[in-house]
Amino acid sequence: MSERLPFSCDYLQGCHPAILNRLQETNLEACDGYGSDSYTQKAKELILKACELPDGEVQLLSGGTQANLIVIAAALQRYQAVISADTGHINYHEAGSVEGSGHKILALPHRYGKITAQQVGDYMKVFTADANNEHMAQPALVYISQPTEYGTLYSAEELRQLHEVCQQYGLLLYADGARLAYSLAAAENDATLPILAKYCDIFYIGGTKCGALLGEAVVFSRKNLLPHFFTTCKQMGGIMAKGKLLGIQFATLFEDDLYLKVGKEAVSYADEIRLFLKTNGWQLLFDCPTNQIFVIMDDEKLEKFGKKVSYSFWEKTDDSHTVIRLATSWATTRQNVDDLLQVIEEL
Amino acid sequence: MSERLPFSCDYLQGCHPAILNRLQETNLEACDGYGSDSYTQKAKELILKACELPDGEVQLLSGGTQANLIVIAAALQRYQAVISADTGHINYHEAGSVEGSGHKILALPHRYGKITAQQVGDYMKVFTADANNEHMAQPALVYISQPTEYGTLYSAEELRQLHEVCQQYGLLLYADGARLAYSLAAAENDATLPILAKYCDIFYIGGTKCGALLGEAVVFSRKNLLPHFFTTCKQMGGIMAKGKLLGIQFATLFEDDLYLKVGKEAVSYADEIRLFLKTNGWQLLFDCPTNQIFVIMDDEKLEKFGKKVSYSFWEKTDDSHTVIRLATSWATTRQNVDDLLQVIEEL
Amino acid sequence: MSERLPFSCDYLQGCHPAILNRLQETNLEACDGYGSDSYTQKAKELILKACELPDGEVQLLSGGTQANLIVIAAALQRYQAVISADTGHINYHEAGSVEGSGHKILALPHRYGKITAQQVGDYMKVFTADANNEHMAQPALVYISQPTEYGTLYSAEELRQLHEVCQQYGLLLYADGARLAYSLAAAENDATLPILAKYCDIFYIGGTKCGALLGEAVVFSRKNLLPHFFTTCKQMGGIMAKGKLLGIQFATLFEDDLYLKVGKEAVSYADEIRLFLKTNGWQLLFDCPTNQIFVIMDDEKLEKFGKKVSYSFWEKTDDSHTVIRLATSWATTRQNVDDLLQVIEEL
Amino acid sequence: MSERLPFSCDYLQGCHPAILNRLQETNLEACDGYGSDSYTQKAKELILKACELPDGEVQLLSGGTQANLIVIAAALQRYQAVISADTGHINYHEAGSVEGSGHKILALPHRYGKITAQQVGDYMKVFTADANNEHMAQPALVYISQPTEYGTLYSAEELRQLHEVCQQYGLLLYADGARLAYSLAAAENDATLPILAKYCDIFYIGGTKCGALLGEAVVFSRKNLLPHFFTTCKQMGGIMAKGKLLGIQFATLFEDDLYLKVGKEAVSYADEIRLFLKTNGWQLLFDCPTNQIFVIMDDEKLEKFGKKVSYSFWEKTDDSHTVIRLATSWATTRQNVDDLLQVIEEL
Repeated sequence: MSERLPFSCDYLQGCHPAILNRLQETNLEACDGYGSDSYTQKAKELILKACELPDGEVQLLSGGTQANLIVIAAALQRYQAVISADTGHINYHEAGSVEGSGHKILALPHRYGKITAQQVGDYMKVFTADANNEHMAQPALVYISQPTEYGTLYSAEELRQLHEVCQQYGLLLYADGARLAYSLAAAENDATLPILAKYCDIFYIGGTKCGALLGEAVVFSRKNLLPHFFTTCKQMGGIMAKGKLLGIQFATLFEDDLYLKVGKEAVSYADEIRLFLKTNGWQLLFDCPTNQIFVIMDDEKLEKFGKKVSYSFWEKTDDSHTVIRLATSWATTRQNVDDLLQVIEEL
Repeated sequence: MSERLPFSCDYLQGCHPAILNRLQETNLEACDGYGSDSYTQKAKELILKACELPDGEVQLLSGGTQANLIVIAAALQRYQAVISADTGHINYHEAGSVEGSGHKILALPHRYGKITAQQVGDYMKVFTADANNEHMAQPALVYISQPTEYGTLYSAEELRQLHEVCQQYGLLLYADGARLAYSLAAAENDATLPILAKYCDIFYIGGTKCGALLGEAVVFSRKNLLPHFFTTCKQMGGIMAKGKLLGIQFATLFEDDLYLKVGKEAVSYADEIRLFLKTNGWQLLFDCPTNQIFVIMDDEKLEKFGKKVSYSFWEKTDDSHTVIRLATSWATTRQNVDDLLQVIEEL
Repeated sequence: MSERLPFSCDYLQGCHPAILNRLQETNLEACDGYGSDSYTQKAKELILKACELPDGEVQLLSGGTQANLIVIAAALQRYQAVISADTGHINYHEAGSVEGSGHKILALPHRYGKITAQQVGDYMKVFTADANNEHMAQPALVYISQPTEYGTLYSAEELRQLHEVCQQYGLLLYADGARLAYSLAAAENDATLPILAKYCDIFYIGGTKCGALLGEAVVFSRKNLLPHFFTTCKQMGGIMAKGKLLGIQFATLFEDDLYLKVGKEAVSYADEIRLFLKTNGWQLLFDCPTNQIFVIMDDEKLEKFGKKVSYSFWEKTDDSHTVIRLATSWATTRQNVDDLLQVIEEL
Repeated sequence: MSERLPFSCDYLQGCHPAILNRLQETNLEACDGYGSDSYTQKAKELILKACELPDGEVQLLSGGTQANLIVIAAALQRYQAVISADTGHINYHEAGSVEGSGHKILALPHRYGKITAQQVGDYMKVFTADANNEHMAQPALVYISQPTEYGTLYSAEELRQLHEVCQQYGLLLYADGARLAYSLAAAENDATLPILAKYCDIFYIGGTKCGALLGEAVVFSRKNLLPHFFTTCKQMGGIMAKGKLLGIQFATLFEDDLYLKVGKEAVSYADEIRLFLKTNGWQLLFDCPTNQIFVIMDDEKLEKFGKKVSYSFWEKTDDSHTVIRLATSWATTRQNVDDLLQVIEEL
């Protein structure tokens, strides 16, 4: 793959140099295990401060599927279910992990990756009215992604409405923030970390795709929301002995607001690429505001393109056209972008 | 903790410098995700070669509890159970993860952390003869640790016997090698990697406690032993997007036999500490051959000791005495050991 | 409820008198437990004979949700999923039991409760072609209901096609026969017991809704298809101590072909009711061939109707109309039907 | 088996004639499903009255393993575990069902089937003091059997002490009453239904072994102790469509105190058999106060005995002696006992 331009995903490279430097500096320091070290402590404090959550709580985990799996399993009683967009990452690309932990996913039709408060409310109205609803798994948590799997964003107002309908029906609101840095860096975004923390009961701040080697920070809007969550994490294989590896990374990402900056360039490069594509007559699937670009290519050009650029297949639109996804990341360089635009120009 | 001498465990520091150097060198290389990168490929080849397993298979995972959980869950049908020493790490200190995945642990009484082929055979004989055994969970896998939770070792002959009894009763033999480097470095050890690979159906080579930042390499003695194991790992949150982080570490640990060397100093320091303790009239719980030291202290001395050295509580022997555990590691220095001996001398 | 005419479901009354008589006659006989009694043995033999399955196997269980739950859980590995019509009983009205046992349901859009071999094939083609399919739960079993939740029937040819596509993709075909007696009694039915047994790997013959007090007979088309199935049943709470209670009922139902007769009257009454409704200008949702009747009523008439007849709500068609379901059963009498028709006439 | 005297267990025959008569009388009455019928309602009221639990709740289930499985699964969070005697029925003879639902059993050594408040308290003291207890499954429920698997009884005072220690450590106390009628009928018993209801948070009143065809009544000492318990039962396959089958049986058993009488004769016959054995020089394993008899036989006599009497193997005491278990039941006749004593006399 090394010869092709790296636009297939946002987890291709290692980590932000500042993180690797901190790992070097602290490598031989002896630290307590399992997240009781001072770096993890500091990371948690910085994250809660950035989220304006003085009474919140944080648990660092190692990956996104793991975070979704453990949070949902810990949040639900065994008779409860999750509401999600049908395109939710948990619904297809996590190998049935939510179901593997015993819970049904109730999939609502998405619109570019999003579901609305209206949809949730309508679903709950029908469910509540159903005389046989004790024969059905009880909806208890709404799963959303910010940004979504399509790179789209929930606005602050949309989150407020989702929060409201969740409160009305006793549902938890949980946001998967695997690519959160790229939402925070988007021009149109008004769902800041404090806004997310205000409207979501639980969300996670993605590290793996946003500058860390690995790691996701699960944020709880209030203390002890899920009792013995550490034990549940341990039971499900989510606790690292060397917790400082996660602590150092998140402490670095939240010092001097690095996390708010780390996605800026990526989104700005993505904007540039989208503009270039549109200007040059390419059709975008829709106008994504974050680091992902969905463009329709005819298959002949795609074949040539694929020899020079690594991309992701998204879906076929017809027999001779394909939607592909390109992704920029914190590691994308000026040179990468220039090379990409040139490849496209020459197709 | 920083001021105290670090002997409480073997996962206190970061990683072997050779690993961190490789992470630096490769940081901005774009690699395919989820373990399909070339470093992971290379790590697998080196491990299989070291194990003399041309037809084996390797999957890299991130932690020990996770490896035990996923391997056991993937290996067992839902009506099956695990045989383990009552002191097995899975039996108490993994928060019920094996049971959490649906499987009973049938605990046999240990002797310094070990169980024998005789015990397994006797158990199976009674089970097989029981007319009601279809009303019971069916034993299907024997879990052992090498070295054990007491730092003791299975000899090649003991492994052969366990293998034999497992074959006889249709059981899989699985070894937890969280501290495997310290067994391979022990003077008395004759259970080499190829021997383990020959007698165990599955085992894992510990990285986290043996020089890596994180990571365990699960080794299967034959291909496709557990079909779709990758999907099971994914479902249970065990697949890292940046798989190269594991690949680079294990590739480094298995180049130039680093893994066989990394525990040498630790065990030799532990031998030196044990000798010093015995020579100076301290009572060891027993004569451990690896990197752990179990020593009985009276509680008054222990209080003074604990101010200067971080150690692990093991158990009370009576009202005024305690067994503590000290552990050396790949990161233990000559200076650490000298300081420790001086602290002990001055108690 | 007693004053209203009993058409809300087919499990309202006790059991066929022949069964209760047998229970009386055998009540004080001492029988071995857990299904090892001679009545259970006889029931199994009669069922296998009726299915023309000399090498098949039968396990008696106590209810439909239980049968679905245990069969599917026993048939699947933990990384595997079920394909079902979105209207499949397992998908909504069993409280998430399949997911509770760890497995995702992949729901295909139904047509009057049915899915086609074409749909399954198309789904599998896309799945197989997906380069990321190892990140997804692996389809392994197709669940259908005969008759379906809409009372419709798979023809022998449709079953053959489903069987073929399942063979092609390595899927098991499993049929939920909660109301099987009413399919076997339907005029248009050509999927006899031997046909079901030929094309389905596993199916169950419903007792609860077809003349028994309780009980379902799970039929395996070949021996040892699911090893240690008894132990799985025991583990999941599905084994009755007094197995003879099930054995006697199924032995009675399969002596002198009672099971083939028990639904005849019910279906003929349902035909009569449907004809009457159509003749008198009522609109049926569609022309169901078995013991269920789906009729559209305006809500004013429905209110009057509901005072005299117990029925099931199915769905709203618009603000002032409702689809209701009426069901006949082995216990429906001539008088019940006459009374019903009169009630309808007077609406 | 029919020719041998039926003493192998207490679930060999059908049901108390009063029950079968009620089933006959009510057979063709149409009743609402899933336990919402009037018979179930009446059974619940009678049970709560007998337990002196005006604010309690009852759910009828179909079998003992099912009741244990569902109650424990519903009562525990996924990080929690059960404390049980090592001889607890859930620990071996239910095929790993508790673990199958995700929960570890923490087995304490029994004394004739019982554990003490002291043992529970000691266990919890150690657990609570363990600095690493967040790495362990959290004990949350104590499981006992009344009578135990050895037929022994907890006294009211022992139950009070267990209750007290459970309250102290935040544990639920749950009693498995598969054979409860035989404890209530025992001369030495002072743990009446109201006493059980006072000290246990949850217990079940066994029907299957105590005169019913099938069925166990789970009693909760307070309303809504386990929210949505019906849905959990449904999910785990525990809800019968024809709930009236259970309702009629328990309504019959609790009318005119039949349940308090149904075990009287059985226990009195067992007392007579024990006295006869002791008087005639046979050695009892211990002096059981309920319907089970544990006697040591030399294997030669046992072979002869086994030809005339069906018994249960319990354990070998040495190479030539065996402990067997005999059980009387509500169905045991005067003639059965006389025949048994004669067989023993002639050995």
